[in-house]
Amino acid sequence: MRNDGRVSDQLRPVTITRNYIKHAEGSCLIEVGDTKVICTASLEERVPPFMRGGGKGWITAEYSMLPRATETRNARESSKGKLGGRTMEIQRLIGRTLRSVVALESMGERTIWIDCDVIQADGGTRTASITGAFVAMVDAMYKLVQSGTWKKLPITDYLAATSVGIINGEALLDLNYKEDSTATVDMNVIMTGAGKYVELQGTGEEAPFTPTELTTLLALAQTGIVDLIEAQKQALGDLTQYIHTLPAQEVKEGSHA
Amino acid sequence: MRNDGRVSDQLRPVTITRNYIKHAEGSCLIEVGDTKVICTASLEERVPPFMRGGGKGWITAEYSMLPRATETRNARESSKGKLGGRTMEIQRLIGRTLRSVVALESMGERTIWIDCDVIQADGGTRTASITGAFVAMVDAMYKLVQSGTWKKLPITDYLAATSVGIINGEALLDLNYKEDSTATVDMNVIMTGAGKYVELQGTGEEAPFTPTELTTLLALAQTGIVDLIEAQKQALGDLTQYIHTLPAQEVKEGSHA
Amino acid sequence: MRNDGRVSDQLRPVTITRNYIKHAEGSCLIEVGDTKVICTASLEERVPPFMRGGGKGWITAEYSMLPRATETRNARESSKGKLGGRTMEIQRLIGRTLRSVVALESMGERTIWIDCDVIQADGGTRTASITGAFVAMVDAMYKLVQSGTWKKLPITDYLAATSVGIINGEALLDLNYKEDSTATVDMNVIMTGAGKYVELQGTGEEAPFTPTELTTLLALAQTGIVDLIEAQKQALGDLTQYIHTLPAQEVKEGSHA
Amino acid sequence: MRNDGRVSDQLRPVTITRNYIKHAEGSCLIEVGDTKVICTASLEERVPPFMRGGGKGWITAEYSMLPRATETRNARESSKGKLGGRTMEIQRLIGRTLRSVVALESMGERTIWIDCDVIQADGGTRTASITGAFVAMVDAMYKLVQSGTWKKLPITDYLAATSVGIINGEALLDLNYKEDSTATVDMNVIMTGAGKYVELQGTGEEAPFTPTELTTLLALAQTGIVDLIEAQKQALGDLTQYIHTLPAQEVKEGSHA
Amino acid sequence: MRNDGRVSDQLRPVTITRNYIKHAEGSCLIEVGDTKVICTASLEERVPPFMRGGGKGWITAEYSMLPRATETRNARESSKGKLGGRTMEIQRLIGRTLRSVVALESMGERTIWIDCDVIQADGGTRTASITGAFVAMVDAMYKLVQSGTWKKLPITDYLAATSVGIINGEALLDLNYKEDSTATVDMNVIMTGAGKYVELQGTGEEAPFTPTELTTLLALAQTGIVDLIEAQKQALGDLTQYIHTLPAQEVKEGSHA
Amino acid sequence: MRNDGRVSDQLRPVTITRNYIKHAEGSCLIEVGDTKVICTASLEERVPPFMRGGGKGWITAEYSMLPRATETRNARESSKGKLGGRTMEIQRLIGRTLRSVVALESMGERTIWIDCDVIQADGGTRTASITGAFVAMVDAMYKLVQSGTWKKLPITDYLAATSVGIINGEALLDLNYKEDSTATVDMNVIMTGAGKYVELQGTGEEAPFTPTELTTLLALAQTGIVDLIEAQKQALGDLTQYIHTLPAQEVKEGSHA
Repeated sequence: MRNDGRVSDQLRPVTITRNYIKHAEGSCLIEVGDTKVICTASLEERVPPFMRGGGKGWITAEYSMLPRATETRNARESSKGKLGGRTMEIQRLIGRTLRSVVALESMGERTIWIDCDVIQADGGTRTASITGAFVAMVDAMYKLVQSGTWKKLPITDYLAATSVGIINGEALLDLNYKEDSTATVDMNVIMTGAGKYVELQGTGEEAPFTPTELTTLLALAQTGIVDLIEAQKQALGDLTQYIHTLPAQEVKEGSHA
Repeated sequence: MRNDGRVSDQLRPVTITRNYIKHAEGSCLIEVGDTKVICTASLEERVPPFMRGGGKGWITAEYSMLPRATETRNARESSKGKLGGRTMEIQRLIGRTLRSVVALESMGERTIWIDCDVIQADGGTRTASITGAFVAMVDAMYKLVQSGTWKKLPITDYLAATSVGIINGEALLDLNYKEDSTATVDMNVIMTGAGKYVELQGTGEEAPFTPTELTTLLALAQTGIVDLIEAQKQALGDLTQYIHTLPAQEVKEGSHA
Repeated sequence: MRNDGRVSDQLRPVTITRNYIKHAEGSCLIEVGDTKVICTASLEERVPPFMRGGGKGWITAEYSMLPRATETRNARESSKGKLGGRTMEIQRLIGRTLRSVVALESMGERTIWIDCDVIQADGGTRTASITGAFVAMVDAMYKLVQSGTWKKLPITDYLAATSVGIINGEALLDLNYKEDSTATVDMNVIMTGAGKYVELQGTGEEAPFTPTELTTLLALAQTGIVDLIEAQKQALGDLTQYIHTLPAQEVKEGSHA
Repeated sequence: MRNDGRVSDQLRPVTITRNYIKHAEGSCLIEVGDTKVICTASLEERVPPFMRGGGKGWITAEYSMLPRATETRNARESSKGKLGGRTMEIQRLIGRTLRSVVALESMGERTIWIDCDVIQADGGTRTASITGAFVAMVDAMYKLVQSGTWKKLPITDYLAATSVGIINGEALLDLNYKEDSTATVDMNVIMTGAGKYVELQGTGEEAPFTPTELTTLLALAQTGIVDLIEAQKQALGDLTQYIHTLPAQEVKEGSHA
Repeated sequence: MRNDGRVSDQLRPVTITRNYIKHAEGSCLIEVGDTKVICTASLEERVPPFMRGGGKGWITAEYSMLPRATETRNARESSKGKLGGRTMEIQRLIGRTLRSVVALESMGERTIWIDCDVIQADGGTRTASITGAFVAMVDAMYKLVQSGTWKKLPITDYLAATSVGIINGEALLDLNYKEDSTATVDMNVIMTGAGKYVELQGTGEEAPFTPTELTTLLALAQTGIVDLIEAQKQALGDLTQYIHTLPAQEVKEGSHA
Repeated sequence: MRNDGRVSDQLRPVTITRNYIKHAEGSCLIEVGDTKVICTASLEERVPPFMRGGGKGWITAEYSMLPRATETRNARESSKGKLGGRTMEIQRLIGRTLRSVVALESMGERTIWIDCDVIQADGGTRTASITGAFVAMVDAMYKLVQSGTWKKLPITDYLAATSVGIINGEALLDLNYKEDSTATVDMNVIMTGAGKYVELQGTGEEAPFTPTELTTLLALAQTGIVDLIEAQKQALGDLTQYIHTLPAQEVKEGSHA
């Protein structure tokens, strides 16, 4: 039994509240146990300088934590005057993984800005951010379908993320903060609805891990991803009819090339 | 009739949800119409360098807006690498006004960090921050009463804030964003429960104002403050019994000197 | 009797030396007691990006203190790599209040940069800056009248500033540094020649103040403003004939809208 | 056949020149094909503030590229005034993975600073940095064995890193820059001499990858790691006798906990 | 005849007004033609971290220009958030040259902060700064003689600076801004009262110069230095009796070692 | 005999390895004793904003040291977030002196970026940088001759640099780090092949120097420069035929004006 009563392959309760912020084109509050993240998606009718003239769209992300999202107060990065390495890593990860399920070439020269702001943290903030950001992004994209600008959503698959880890030799799904602090191996897994890996980040700083342990962890992660994508579908409701994921074959042949 | 159906001397609906963030010693979500601010208060067992050895406590505040709190997305100050002038003004104001109703000399060498993070903005974010921060601060202070560290709360009065302004020659209470954008005069008023001014900031950038107009605006503000302090009392519930405000005379004689 | 021998409603001696810096289009040295500020006004034939294409002009201000303007040396903000909150507040205030007496729509797309550099500080540096900056601005504007670019000065009224405060229960005009340090209430008042308020910033961090005290302070401030505007007129000499202030009625009807 | 004539599971030529910089306690120039990195290891007789008093040591790393290491010149991060996200990710990775094979608790309160400076880049700079940094670190640590401070090197295993990727559906080992630019899947693998994973970072931004593809890539990486560790042993020569790697069982039981 | 009517070996008029800023321990306004610099010297009863415990004193300098000291407005370095290379060069030069005539070992662990703020610029601001800073420094040092802390001034010689240059093949002393802009060779010469060089900085960016030209320029500079030191003596008046410069022999033998 | 066995007027061994970095248009590794600097020259087909439209070219330089180039590790300027004063001085010097032997008006609107990265430091890094940068610049320029863009190299003379100093009263050529630390006078001399001065920077912070000492030092420097230019010619080999230095007369008459 885990410190919060879960069994090893059990996610924490997941709640996704859509349209949480009135001004944003897309937004949600995602709660994974006590981890709470406000995700917004903002449309901008242009792309960054390095992409201009290419006819393609762009997805970019920023991530932040409120100072008191954590057990002790963290100084604001705006007050310190620069972003920390952890923040940069996470926001690069969010943007990169979301782009992997978007047909950028179908977006026109538009940017979607994803903002993930953690208002309460209890482990897994980056994976909750990705799972929630996908929902906010769909809502923002749907605005352009509603306005007639786009005929369909430029999305090729669902995308969700979770963490797995090894504690006292046992593989566990969806680590909370206390578990994360004592894990010897920690891995973030981001997968598509079709069960493919978009990103794997496993680290055994405390103790290197064997290929067998890797296999166990990946299987555990897949279980969680299936449930998270189900939660996304529940939250999106009617909008799911606009998400026509590509058949596996098409993806394989490099539809994003 | 105003753009949201209110009459000139009517506040927007005010909701204060206490203990909104589980890690903070004190916290609330304050909603004033569509303006929503998460206020947290964090205890730290030391004071900043410039106050060490003086035996007194300190209250300091930081203020920020999520990028998509506003109608169009604002770049993060953490990404820009520095705080803007508006942010600095507001966070200095919040800290200064809260200190005015705290007996710092009764706190011991402790700091209370106030964080006001606007998650949705519709005008009056700085005044909502002050009104909400007072509640979060009381909760954090009460932790030290509960633990037996303090015998009573080092608070000398309630504190709330609202804005007033002149639009088309008419004085209005509690401006929303649209009203604020068209006001020729705009004033933030921060007052105590005893009806005294802690801070007045009136600006007539668009059109200077007369002493008569000033008098009208101040009366209007006072009406709003009374209601806001009533909302604070409702939110604080049983905790109000621990707030023994000083009689007017004591305040006058400079108890904070 | 005050620490420098003045009575309660007495300004310190005011001296305004025009054309103090040879390169600037307008400049003066303003001395208010031992407070000395070099004010320059620079013309630029364009407006900031956010105003381009609007056909209007802009006034912006920067404020700084030499490191040894004060009793102990202050580190330079250029060495620290960022502006402090106090500096930002003051320079925003200077720009905002000057704009209130300028018909920006009559300036064409031009910017006037105001620089206020305190070379010696003894209280009231921000109010002296505003009073002096008005004079420098008039001189710079007159350059465009002389060159035939403008037919008249786009100024709607005089503008001056002073501080008032309460010390030991007594209301005093034009606080010097020592007085400012012991005041329980401190207020900056910026007014036009027509006796209207452009900005009020009153703070009772040390002790909240009553409506009655407010009334007393405002009356005191008005006395000082009248004398300061007289000093501006003396300094400007012949140029005063080019300043055609609007009648009160026109101002009221929103000539700047 | 690959663009540089290699077969799919072939590393580029690897050269490690020890003691490349005379001042550093440990240093080498590592060349992996045309990628060239100067790695130095510097001893410092203290640990960072957050570790003081714990009795343990620390390994930290910094990474940089000369402006003209790349095909077109990159602006210096020192001139831009801040580190980019990519740099931060890489230097965090280098430090984290080296720590995984060091018994920090046997180091005493000492820091080893690793500096990896890429003087010429042709893909795989981060993995070459790790492989070279291990050698420089051993040399620096040996200084303390020579001086009698340490009885043995606090190292639990060898550590090397390489990249693998998928191009046109084929899995390739050790991507050069041109290959890296066209890969749909890109993975960095950092492993110990015992064949355990210290870190896996796989990303399929261009096309998600299947579990089967993952298995193929990991097998390919392992082949490369074996050769790289052999190259480290060749370079270290006599020093290898001081590296007593832990038996697998000890590592498993968490000797670093 | 030069553009301002001087002959080739003629300095511009030099005025030094002592005690220009009331708060500083030492201060002056130095005017060299239209170049005007406020120099202050501030005493601090400690030395920077790198000198602590050594028993010696330190002299350090900062230099800045008001934005409108120049013909067109320059952006403030505080607003830009960093010092430019020119500023850094100049302030390092001022500190270094002043230290060359101070017996740091006789100062005790004290720092003198020199601030040179150019309020109006017409060429030669760095050399005027050095000449003026010497006077301010003497005044500040004398405070410690007056208070009985020091028995004598820890000064080994006078120090002054001027510029020389070549325009249209002619060597000129003390270039004003217009001359400086057209000079092909430009040299700053800083010398002691004993006629020794403390610093030479000659640059022929526009045209390299010959040894013969160098000799001519150095002779010209010496003429100017003699007059500048005379002006310092006039300004210092009675204080000159406290400046006991070392005989040449003592200086030669390395009294500062 | 000096600490490394040289006589007073002897340079350290000089080695210049051309084409050291494959991506750069021009590059070399220059070794002067144990001082080693990688110099690269990069062509850019535009000039900085302040030169656009003038039809002339530009040469600019950046300088940096690897953290462990020195005996103890120096923090990176990229980590500190700003360039130090020493770095700025040196890179300004490198750019300025190279420009003195380039006919910018013959370059067209092109920039050559010089990067000098010190990988090992033992005194004289700035002078070695200049000497090496000249070689890298020639190689980069020759690319444009080869491509037919330029008919000849826009170079008017050779350029090399060395340092001289006084230690224990003796004048020495080409100081190493240990010598530099004990010198009372230190001078950097940058000269052309025609024996003219481009820049002189002499400082006697520890002890002012006499005109006679200056003459001795300059003669010593000239000896070294001759040998360094010979080393450049050896390194450039066949390319020397493309360097048609101007006859002295032409230079004198201001060919760069």
